[in-house]
Amino acid sequence: MTSDVETRACDDDHQALRLWLRLLTCTNLIEADVRRRLTQRFSITLPRFDLMAQLDRCPDGLTMSELSKRMMVTGGNVTGITDQVEREGYVVREVMPHDRRVCRVRLTEAGRKVFAEMAAEHECWVKDLMAGLSEAEVKVLLDLLGRLKTHMVALKS
Amino acid sequence: MTSDVETRACDDDHQALRLWLRLLTCTNLIEADVRRRLTQRFSITLPRFDLMAQLDRCPDGLTMSELSKRMMVTGGNVTGITDQVEREGYVVREVMPHDRRVCRVRLTEAGRKVFAEMAAEHECWVKDLMAGLSEAEVKVLLDLLGRLKTHMVALKS
Repeated sequence: MTSDVETRACDDDHQALRLWLRLLTCTNLIEADVRRRLTQRFSITLPRFDLMAQLDRCPDGLTMSELSKRMMVTGGNVTGITDQVEREGYVVREVMPHDRRVCRVRLTEAGRKVFAEMAAEHECWVKDLMAGLSEAEVKVLLDLLGRLKTHMVALKS
Repeated sequence: MTSDVETRACDDDHQALRLWLRLLTCTNLIEADVRRRLTQRFSITLPRFDLMAQLDRCPDGLTMSELSKRMMVTGGNVTGITDQVEREGYVVREVMPHDRRVCRVRLTEAGRKVFAEMAAEHECWVKDLMAGLSEAEVKVLLDLLGRLKTHMVALKS
């Protein structure tokens, strides 16, 4: 009896591990494709695109520490990436009037326009990558990964 | 009519993008947790663990270029990581008798033993992270992500 339970436990572990490796493989495949296309099409790195994406969602801008927390991809420190994008004129740093130690970064009008173009193409690339799945399957994946995420966030707190 | 099709297309894009961001979030959450535990428990980095995991699957060893291709996580060049793990006595480099330009890396006995211990705990961590999902749900996720992967690999070729 004990050996049955152990065997089953072992199989469960194995499935969990297989799922983790498959998640990682899918993420790596999408990320590599998006990175390559961003470079080819817009000469932009993924971390710079990601920084602009985070700012696009927050018209009032974000502090550097908020930006750090929200960045989805690694590949450079936020200060260095912000410097580059600022030199291109796509973001500005603004010192807060009520607290001169804090500075917020926000997209410029030029940055917002350029990002909108890039984001539209980026959505098409991602849609093509996901085209092997039906709409209903995408919904199932969204739901199950949503529950996985909720469980993991609950474990952390 | 055209606007309906465009609207639907837009919604589809949006779901695909949501799925990509959710995949990335789940991967980042698991990876951060595993990284933290590997450091705390075994004072080992994820790239070093990953290198040993790849070698554990190949008792005959791998060349440096094979290792490079198989590494699942980023965070250092393979030569540097191999140097570190070699200093710890967990891998050896061997020059091939038939072609002295090629060297293979393989786990030592000590490396294989240490890796087995780490891998057993690593499986438990991953199982705990996935514990929010039933066995059946894990199978569905494995299946759908498998099909996503197959589609993406087919696109590349």
